[in-house]
Amino acid sequence: MITVLCGGVGGSRLLLSLAAVLPAERITAIVNTGDDDWFHGLYVSPDPDIITYALAGEVDPERGWGLRGDTFRWLESLRRFGHDTWFQIGDRDLATHLHRTRLMGDGVPLSEIIADIAHAFGVGVRLLPMSDDRVRTIVTSGGEDLPFQEYLVHRHAPDNVTQIRFDGADAARAAPGVLAAIAAAEAIIIAPSNPIGSIGPILAVPGIRDAIAAAAVPRVAVSPIVGGRSLQPPAAEMLRGLGFPVDAPGVARVYAGLIDALVIDESDAADAARVEAAGARPLISRTLMRDDASRRALALAVLAAARVTP
Amino acid sequence: MITVLCGGVGGSRLLLSLAAVLPAERITAIVNTGDDDWFHGLYVSPDPDIITYALAGEVDPERGWGLRGDTFRWLESLRRFGHDTWFQIGDRDLATHLHRTRLMGDGVPLSEIIADIAHAFGVGVRLLPMSDDRVRTIVTSGGEDLPFQEYLVHRHAPDNVTQIRFDGADAARAAPGVLAAIAAAEAIIIAPSNPIGSIGPILAVPGIRDAIAAAAVPRVAVSPIVGGRSLQPPAAEMLRGLGFPVDAPGVARVYAGLIDALVIDESDAADAARVEAAGARPLISRTLMRDDASRRALALAVLAAARVTP
Repeated sequence: MITVLCGGVGGSRLLLSLAAVLPAERITAIVNTGDDDWFHGLYVSPDPDIITYALAGEVDPERGWGLRGDTFRWLESLRRFGHDTWFQIGDRDLATHLHRTRLMGDGVPLSEIIADIAHAFGVGVRLLPMSDDRVRTIVTSGGEDLPFQEYLVHRHAPDNVTQIRFDGADAARAAPGVLAAIAAAEAIIIAPSNPIGSIGPILAVPGIRDAIAAAAVPRVAVSPIVGGRSLQPPAAEMLRGLGFPVDAPGVARVYAGLIDALVIDESDAADAARVEAAGARPLISRTLMRDDASRRALALAVLAAARVTP
Repeated sequence: MITVLCGGVGGSRLLLSLAAVLPAERITAIVNTGDDDWFHGLYVSPDPDIITYALAGEVDPERGWGLRGDTFRWLESLRRFGHDTWFQIGDRDLATHLHRTRLMGDGVPLSEIIADIAHAFGVGVRLLPMSDDRVRTIVTSGGEDLPFQEYLVHRHAPDNVTQIRFDGADAARAAPGVLAAIAAAEAIIIAPSNPIGSIGPILAVPGIRDAIAAAAVPRVAVSPIVGGRSLQPPAAEMLRGLGFPVDAPGVARVYAGLIDALVIDESDAADAARVEAAGARPLISRTLMRDDASRRALALAVLAAARVTP
């Protein structure tokens, strides 16, 4: 079994790649829930949903979130009542949020809800939230403290980040199965997600960072920085804001002590020595997952780095 | 000012008729909320919504409820999670329910929520729920106690009703403005709604029946029974189940002591003497509201019976 730490879009793409070369039941994903928030009275869990929809083949390919071809009729109608509608939820997507919100109201833990939704979508990869407790990623930007989605979606990820914190993380416990999935893994993979904003919250849950730091199995991250640019906002803004260089060596520094190897894109090959100096063995591959062939190639490179036989 | 007691479909039609001949601000509607219930985690208030949508010109003309041309994409998606979807809510309609549910969660009384939604839809008629307190119409049918919507929508109104009760009515208080609207009315009108299932809950709220019984102004009901059939289910089933004849005299008996006159359809003219014997002055009109002309004609007949000058 391999265990993958992941956020939403980058996480879902790596999981899709891995699921193309490994049986789904060999993959456990520990998913960021620091972006979770309440919108329109609904509990929304962006990263687990993106992953679920993507693994089910139903994610909207243009937006990268939500369901393919979804409409937004309910949201347009909500404007009539004067509500902010900058956080978009499609008509079909909304059923997921209502289902989750009802289960939460019934006291069902988030980990069971995520498993239930993944099951309903026919997803075979095991999805675990980092915690059943509420952890909120708060971005300090331009002097304001903003919840992650407010910063990313409403403010369009401005480049003036001075701090990221994870409210509630200190008191949170890793969700059932998370520490066991790290302990039992034959390899630990960190997806090409935002190292600060998406992987950071997972590592902030007490016990998870220590478990990974202590793991005796191969630990491989995939760099989300390609040619000095982040694949998804706001990884670059956050790295820069916290004083890390926006490049593969910067990613290696964020993961210092947690990874043995960093898969970097061939466009960043010149950074290999600096990655090595930051403590991670650099592995050069093509990291963009644009089609089946590139997905398989990256997955095989990651598994080779992790010494996992598909 | 005239005050109209009403349920959903029949109530909305009479209100539309009255609003065609009277300024909207002269009309106050006291609306049944005994059908209100929770569906899919949302607080749904069927009769106030039907009336709001109808007065806004947005009700779906085929279904008689919901918004014109609405789609049901979210509901189809909800099936994936194994939920019952017999209670239909459209995509645009759902925005209303989410808005209401959020306001309820914030502790806003139902009367303010209904006014807010009516305002958002540009409705000028004043809409008051019968009560801000929860009253649930429970139909005993085939030995089972069923909430109203379960009986009507899920079970398709079977003809084996033995009892109707209004749970919570004893402890409910009339909503702010309701008793004042009865006291200040120049006439009290009872819409051609289900006398037992829609008007019954309003009359069950302590103080309302007594206020109408004691009112010194004209009190006029419009019969929902036309040619021995009810305009909407399940009025006939409920009248029969409770031992009333399914005809205009049966309606007059239900309203004994509460009305001075009953407007009956010309197809029921032969029942006029029995209506009179049941204590209400019979007024023969065409009661079907099928077009602007018939709506205006009925409204003028009702206002004439109530001695109200348009």
